[in-house]
Amino acid sequence: MCADRINRVTPSPISGFPEWTPAERLVEQNMLDRIRASFERFGFSPIETPAVERNAILTAKGGEETERQIYSLTGLHPQSGEDARDYSLHFDLTVPLARYVAQHNNNLVFPFRRYQIQKVWRGERPQHGRFREFTQCDIDIVGDGKLSLMADAEIPAVISTVFNSLDIGDFTIRISNRKILTGYLEHLGFDESEASAILRDADKIERQGTGPLLRTLESLPNGKATQDDILALVQLSGNPADVLHSLNSTDGGERFRTGVGELDAVFEYAGAFGISDENISADIGIVRGLDYYTGTIYETRLDDHPQLGSICSGGRYDDLASYFIRKAMPGVGISIGLTRLFSQLLQAGIVETGSASVAQVLVTTPDDSLLVTAIELASALRAADVNTEVFFEQARLGRQLRYASRKGFKFAVLPLPEDIERDHIKFRDLDAGEEYVVPTAELAAHLTQRLV
Amino acid sequence: MCADRINRVTPSPISGFPEWTPAERLVEQNMLDRIRASFERFGFSPIETPAVERNAILTAKGGEETERQIYSLTGLHPQSGEDARDYSLHFDLTVPLARYVAQHNNNLVFPFRRYQIQKVWRGERPQHGRFREFTQCDIDIVGDGKLSLMADAEIPAVISTVFNSLDIGDFTIRISNRKILTGYLEHLGFDESEASAILRDADKIERQGTGPLLRTLESLPNGKATQDDILALVQLSGNPADVLHSLNSTDGGERFRTGVGELDAVFEYAGAFGISDENISADIGIVRGLDYYTGTIYETRLDDHPQLGSICSGGRYDDLASYFIRKAMPGVGISIGLTRLFSQLLQAGIVETGSASVAQVLVTTPDDSLLVTAIELASALRAADVNTEVFFEQARLGRQLRYASRKGFKFAVLPLPEDIERDHIKFRDLDAGEEYVVPTAELAAHLTQRLV
Repeated sequence: MCADRINRVTPSPISGFPEWTPAERLVEQNMLDRIRASFERFGFSPIETPAVERNAILTAKGGEETERQIYSLTGLHPQSGEDARDYSLHFDLTVPLARYVAQHNNNLVFPFRRYQIQKVWRGERPQHGRFREFTQCDIDIVGDGKLSLMADAEIPAVISTVFNSLDIGDFTIRISNRKILTGYLEHLGFDESEASAILRDADKIERQGTGPLLRTLESLPNGKATQDDILALVQLSGNPADVLHSLNSTDGGERFRTGVGELDAVFEYAGAFGISDENISADIGIVRGLDYYTGTIYETRLDDHPQLGSICSGGRYDDLASYFIRKAMPGVGISIGLTRLFSQLLQAGIVETGSASVAQVLVTTPDDSLLVTAIELASALRAADVNTEVFFEQARLGRQLRYASRKGFKFAVLPLPEDIERDHIKFRDLDAGEEYVVPTAELAAHLTQRLV
Repeated sequence: MCADRINRVTPSPISGFPEWTPAERLVEQNMLDRIRASFERFGFSPIETPAVERNAILTAKGGEETERQIYSLTGLHPQSGEDARDYSLHFDLTVPLARYVAQHNNNLVFPFRRYQIQKVWRGERPQHGRFREFTQCDIDIVGDGKLSLMADAEIPAVISTVFNSLDIGDFTIRISNRKILTGYLEHLGFDESEASAILRDADKIERQGTGPLLRTLESLPNGKATQDDILALVQLSGNPADVLHSLNSTDGGERFRTGVGELDAVFEYAGAFGISDENISADIGIVRGLDYYTGTIYETRLDDHPQLGSICSGGRYDDLASYFIRKAMPGVGISIGLTRLFSQLLQAGIVETGSASVAQVLVTTPDDSLLVTAIELASALRAADVNTEVFFEQARLGRQLRYASRKGFKFAVLPLPEDIERDHIKFRDLDAGEEYVVPTAELAAHLTQRLV
């Protein structure tokens, strides 16, 4: 085939579908590994669901805005893929979990603890920081009929383990309980839709101040009279003991009291779960998932980077799968939007890219006659669990070492006749720029020791 | 929300989109981990590309059959997702790699070694063993202008490392070189389309015997006269030294000789790469990727399960990205169709599912008053890197232990007042059915030792 006769297509990025360089992907993969290990530490088991669900499943709950963002499948050619039009790409991992739990109900063991780390797709309008394809990392504990409040208490321990292991700075898990605000508003005589409006405005305080909330309250009967109490409650946050003390001296009705009791229990066990006091706070103003969460709610922020918003959120819900099975399945879960988090961490310089290679050692081939020796050295290093690449192209040592530096290897091994003859081998620490000559049999041990 | 007023959707599987149980997914994930570790051992770096590519990219090379299988995106609602129609789900990882290498050409270091483990989608007619969504595990070494033949020699070492680590039985990597058969047929005077027809029929021998090949040869001028030589060559296989000896005594023209020389070199270094003789053979009859591969070609079979066909295939190509960039980019790579392999291994009973839990230890809560102790025990085990779950639901010990068995935990920890009082703790080995009481401070050490 003659290359000159080809009609070339010039590749370009697709807006909203991120693609990382090898060095960036290594950092992202490392983050995913740590998240996964943290989830597994608490006994969450991996599941995966197909990228697509039936349209009837995805739209069972309704929600105009979500539905407008759904990508459906169709055949590229009109004569094919007819059946595909019944399927769409999932837009989150919650609907797939609900469908999975309903479909495999008889074969699962409850409480069912699963983690799911997968891509999801949303046809958002492309704009800064919005992705149409992104990776979500979700955990949920789903009960059959009931689920202990201790599951709610355990979730902050998982969040804490995740963010300690990610090592991206100090963080605070803000915890509230949905029943506190809804119970209080109910107690004050607001009906459900009034309460929703109030909560929606409470959610805006951080970005827009108290203006919207005050305007809404003014428009409601009894709004003006209760406005100071409501403002105080939605702005109540800080040390759990102080917040609980304040809540316990508030008369908020029965549901409010239930919520306070649950919140109390979540904080009570934090120490036993190994959560540091510095990593948790009570924050009664968090609203999150108004039509979904019914009890404990979580948000997580980086202390030094509040502009990132919540980087891990979730809560307790009464009924996961009511649209798919006639069975109450309460649960509690959290989600990390990794793509957004990773992209923000990169931009803010909180994580930095380093090496573009997973191998730390490059065996160079400065002398053609020692090719077999170079390969054998690499095989021995690999047998000792050292990720190793061999440079095979014909090139002077200088170019080989430039390759090693550009790709970010830590060590270059240099097989030279004068060393090999006396069973020795030279290696260079590329960061330090220092060279060492060691007995060949000890190479793996030397490198392994320096790689720790 | 009243559950009785909900219009329920009953979930059902989507044909061709596999979904595994938690126990099955654990096995699959374990296989993926081993494949990834093997790839990294040789310095292949992870990249990921979006699930979608522009249609112009996916169809640049053409190929009716492939195009008919492409799933395009469209908005579920007519008024949305208009732009999405320019994108389709990728059907392999080779086109995305070619596009990636062309698009990021200036920022990559060559030879570029990447692995890519991702889902791909093909709108195949649903039939037994055919998947519409499946995971591929690909590696490629791509050169800028040139690529050493040693890259071809290294690939069998990667295959060998992968399948040794998967531990699914004896395997044989069959290796040939495209130039041997095409050169030979050229030498005999067949033109390109005749040679293609002959190779296509040679590829059918294993399933359909030599009939199709003989009929084709009979229909071609010079076919009858050369049929014995051609049959002998396409059926030439076995020990590399024997095969090469036979090839070296064959007069097949210049391209044939080049192919034999390259094949010789690939086998020459196998020992240095640590590949066992039992895991490689020369097999001149393998055809694979007729319009793509130009040099070394690989197939891999399980010795005891030939019915699975090739479970890892690939080869050398002259030009990865000619449709996207005016630059010769030769490469060599292999692909493992993991979903198909995993599903076949499951069906054949070659891999078995065991535990449905990533945690090996369940801390039970037989005594409510010891809840904090149970949580603290779990926290201590996790701090010692032991994946640990706590049973939080109110239930008698018997039910808790049944839960532990059903989910496949290896150990249950039983905090009981009489042990805790004297700083001891009981644990049960659930497989052996034996119980031990040890000092609490030594629990992690005891379990860790038994978990190795």
